Amino acid sequence: MEPTKRTEVHRLPERGVYGIDAINAVLDEALICHVGFVAEAGYPVVIPTIHARSGTTLYLHGSPASRMLRSIKAGADVCVTVTLIDGLVLARAVFHHSMNYRSVMVFGNPREVTDPDEKMRALEAITEHVAHGRWADARHPNEIELKGTTVLALNIDESSAKVRTGPPADENEDYDLPIWAGVVPVATAFGSPVDDPVLPDGLEPPGYVTDYRR
Amino acid sequence: MEPTKRTEVHRLPERGVYGIDAINAVLDEALICHVGFVAEAGYPVVIPTIHARSGTTLYLHGSPASRMLRSIKAGADVCVTVTLIDGLVLARAVFHHSMNYRSVMVFGNPREVTDPDEKMRALEAITEHVAHGRWADARHPNEIELKGTTVLALNIDESSAKVRTGPPADENEDYDLPIWAGVVPVATAFGSPVDDPVLPDGLEPPGYVTDYRR
Repeated sequence: MEPTKRTEVHRLPERGVYGIDAINAVLDEALICHVGFVAEAGYPVVIPTIHARSGTTLYLHGSPASRMLRSIKAGADVCVTVTLIDGLVLARAVFHHSMNYRSVMVFGNPREVTDPDEKMRALEAITEHVAHGRWADARHPNEIELKGTTVLALNIDESSAKVRTGPPADENEDYDLPIWAGVVPVATAFGSPVDDPVLPDGLEPPGYVTDYRR
Repeated sequence: MEPTKRTEVHRLPERGVYGIDAINAVLDEALICHVGFVAEAGYPVVIPTIHARSGTTLYLHGSPASRMLRSIKAGADVCVTVTLIDGLVLARAVFHHSMNYRSVMVFGNPREVTDPDEKMRALEAITEHVAHGRWADARHPNEIELKGTTVLALNIDESSAKVRTGPPADENEDYDLPIWAGVVPVATAFGSPVDDPVLPDGLEPPGYVTDYRR
């Protein structure tokens, strides 16, 4: 997509990525996002929360009592940032230490989802974002729970990604220094499922849990 | 510490943690933070970046050309949020799905670090935050590199943590449903180090790299 004043990557512009496929891949892989908004009193607030993408829409949800949702559901500006860390980049020089990462920023003005069908589909997308296959197994929201959930929708049309990959980049004169340099890979690991202690005997975890992956 | 209007946990107050030891532990374990600030034009911006804690100070750094650092070094309000995901909480009801997590928010007005000694110590803290032991091995910043780095210091005196642990919490009437429920543990995993392709023969990775842990 076309970069805007807000999404264009100025620092290290070679790291800027504006293709929607790359942006979607980061949004889909990341478990959570960080939502920034300006509180009524004027100061910035950043809240971690679960998101889900459905087509060109990013859904957020939470309690109607949430400060974040109350602040932004009236159409306030938000910046939703998603970050995946792929590696620690250890250069010869302290100055050139870095990380390999993929991050996405989405700017916009969310709308509140009030249509019951879209709301249910958004909750399905959020559930499936966290554990693909879960929506078919879990008990769906009833009317009271639907009323007890606020869902916001943000269009992904103003967004960009920033990506760093590869080995360290040192000063030419430093490459002969006897200092190890390279990358420590970083990934998110998912462990063996832990049963709810009050789970009835004989209920086994489903495949999307025992073989969890993103 | 005493919660303020900005740091008090209103939603699910039983998850609020105000002890400085718990706050420090989250800041120290997390590789990166998300910094929120209000751009000149009034919209919120959230940037992922490396941080490091030294005593009661949180250090941030970057290029003097960075939009974030230029925006906030004059003493603007920031919200620095750090989030660790510990588990996916799969309840019987979609409504009660959650995550186990530890997050910290720090509010304040950073100052620019101009004293050369403090600046060098801040860069040491940031380097050691990412890889404990690295400062002793890597080439330290020279004068040009020091000038080419902006360092900001934020006091941690207005902060709080929010923590969820443990199994799902479902509605009483749902516990008999034949639905698996429990937690999928989540952690950050560090892989075997990848040598810089141009590394001279015979340079082995140091112990803090081959046995990397946080």
